[in-house]
Amino acid sequence: MRVFGIDCGTERTGYGVVEVDNASRTQRLEYRCAGAVKLNKKESTAMRLAQVYTELTALLQLWQPEVVAIEEVFFSANAKSALKLGQVRGVAMLAAANCGLTVAEYAPLAIKSAVVGYGLAAKEQVQFMVARLLELDEAPKPADAADALAIAICHIHHAQTAENLRR
Amino acid sequence: MRVFGIDCGTERTGYGVVEVDNASRTQRLEYRCAGAVKLNKKESTAMRLAQVYTELTALLQLWQPEVVAIEEVFFSANAKSALKLGQVRGVAMLAAANCGLTVAEYAPLAIKSAVVGYGLAAKEQVQFMVARLLELDEAPKPADAADALAIAICHIHHAQTAENLRR
Repeated sequence: MRVFGIDCGTERTGYGVVEVDNASRTQRLEYRCAGAVKLNKKESTAMRLAQVYTELTALLQLWQPEVVAIEEVFFSANAKSALKLGQVRGVAMLAAANCGLTVAEYAPLAIKSAVVGYGLAAKEQVQFMVARLLELDEAPKPADAADALAIAICHIHHAQTAENLRR
Repeated sequence: MRVFGIDCGTERTGYGVVEVDNASRTQRLEYRCAGAVKLNKKESTAMRLAQVYTELTALLQLWQPEVVAIEEVFFSANAKSALKLGQVRGVAMLAAANCGLTVAEYAPLAIKSAVVGYGLAAKEQVQFMVARLLELDEAPKPADAADALAIAICHIHHAQTAENLRR
């Protein structure tokens, strides 16, 4: 199973691809790629959204994941920033849908629990564990890329648990 | 000038096309079409966003407007509904950008002022004036369609004022 994680943000949107061989016994997580779409502040909102859509679509077509995982509604401090985040999130979900992929959503608590084993873990702990689980020397930069990998790992854990329950 | 107005909503997204002949002296507003994209509540968020994008793109390609006008950030009561509205708004702006169109944004106050002449006008007054300005027997239904026409009219008024100032 290959999972494409997306961590939406109004300045940078992180992405990361993680794969697991379901047929093998070890079910070792394998890092494929990670990065972030950096938005040009000088551009209009519509052009920035077009940039997110174009880059994510190209990455989805390149990596051909089986599913896209995204962080669940983040209740930001105010309605204005929630609306701006929603615009990016809508475009990211559309990119997945237009590539024929389903979108799985996970709450921040579930993501931290899956990666660190503790839902209220600090950002640094999440990054440390992402690097460790994927056998990387250090967590990918920027932090948004590592967060996207954490979301992908969370989906794999949930899928594996569901699979084990079915057996 | 042909303007495509969009009134974003999480259940229905209204649209309306208004045209004005800049060369003629009367600059009479002409109604072209209006309607709403109704979202299927049974579908996933990603599929609903794909529906908005597909329908708006088809309408933009059909009507070939010169510009898209949209209501500015609506500060809804809570962050959750702002995020959901943002998702639809992001996809609507993307549809415009991917059709090579610029997006003009107008505050609710500016839209009401342009149509009724009073920024705090009631919803019914806006609908009455939309029908009157476009010489329709009654305001198009649903209300989202009439609101989208009001946004398009607002853009035309602003563009005409800017043009007159240049002379």
